[in-house]
Amino acid sequence: MKEQSIPKATVKRLPLYYRYLRILNNAGKTKVSSTELSEAIQVDSATIRRDFSYFGELGKRGYGYDVEDLIHFFGKILNDDQLTNVALVGVGNLGSALLKFKFHQSNSIRVSCAFDVKEDIVGRIVDGIPVYPLDNMVEQIKLQQIEIAILTLPAPQAQTVVDQLVDAGIKGILNFTAARLTAPSDVIIQSVDLTNELQTLIYFLHHNPDKEAK
Amino acid sequence: MKEQSIPKATVKRLPLYYRYLRILNNAGKTKVSSTELSEAIQVDSATIRRDFSYFGELGKRGYGYDVEDLIHFFGKILNDDQLTNVALVGVGNLGSALLKFKFHQSNSIRVSCAFDVKEDIVGRIVDGIPVYPLDNMVEQIKLQQIEIAILTLPAPQAQTVVDQLVDAGIKGILNFTAARLTAPSDVIIQSVDLTNELQTLIYFLHHNPDKEAK
Repeated sequence: MKEQSIPKATVKRLPLYYRYLRILNNAGKTKVSSTELSEAIQVDSATIRRDFSYFGELGKRGYGYDVEDLIHFFGKILNDDQLTNVALVGVGNLGSALLKFKFHQSNSIRVSCAFDVKEDIVGRIVDGIPVYPLDNMVEQIKLQQIEIAILTLPAPQAQTVVDQLVDAGIKGILNFTAARLTAPSDVIIQSVDLTNELQTLIYFLHHNPDKEAK
Repeated sequence: MKEQSIPKATVKRLPLYYRYLRILNNAGKTKVSSTELSEAIQVDSATIRRDFSYFGELGKRGYGYDVEDLIHFFGKILNDDQLTNVALVGVGNLGSALLKFKFHQSNSIRVSCAFDVKEDIVGRIVDGIPVYPLDNMVEQIKLQQIEIAILTLPAPQAQTVVDQLVDAGIKGILNFTAARLTAPSDVIIQSVDLTNELQTLIYFLHHNPDKEAK
């Protein structure tokens, strides 16, 4: 398996493939062609074949792909065969929504604890998830051996919290704040900037009317 | 201005540049070098210079960039000089959070109406934004001449709503559902899939421990 050189764009499509393959499997389908996959997930079939080629010989030309084999394969790659516990820092509007959010494709991702400073929610269980005081964050994350954190706190506090998260052993951060964060090179920071997404969309609307932004 | 060929990755960085330049301007700074920009927004300075080069001669080598000039330029490109009204479809957990969300970098993006089917919120004003019944969506969007919609409704209903949005004149869709949507080629669909983001992060955590996922 030559996984070292897989482009990020390919990795981003793996969850899509995986989700759709599970839908096919639930529907009793055993084989799928890249054309069928292409129509269902709106990715052109040449891209699908190239993506799959990064993972070696996944199917035979003309025979299509074996659905169960692919599910097993992508499930393993995406670590969907084991539970990943995730911490959430900042139970404001967006944070609360994410506590309720069903990470729909996956039974293997679970927000197992949240942290905040607001006295009215700290020490309570919100939507099934315990909310601890921010002061206990490092301790809880170490105790629960959590490696991934979701940041939904105000931007000005974000870097301080990131420094603490790194000390606590966090290796991946999904950053919903507008802050540009720094962390050691072995910590991955992935940012989801909602204003940025909208501004990019507006840009394409005015500048590339015939181009898809996918 | 040769804007035709600007890569999506560059466009995605424009809001970052713009936001940081406004911070500099508020702090009274009039000049900025690509190195300073680089340190502040965590993008390497060669990338910044290449990004800027798509927009022609924005600064003189060795003199740095004029902050006000850049703000004016990027503001215009990002349409930040005029208000963009946006519709939101689906006032559930995530939808409600986005109604409260301050699109922080920008005074020029405003959710001006929301749509839902739930009787307890339809016809009410939620966080300052009127929530109309889904049945009135096409009419309201035409009336308000809205071109951008945010989708935060359940995935199974998403495609039906997209078809109606397209009929109503929507040209850009920010899709938070897990559905893979189809629309005519002049309609841009940009998807933010939160499960996908987490799964990608988990992938990189296990496969590329030394690489940044930005």
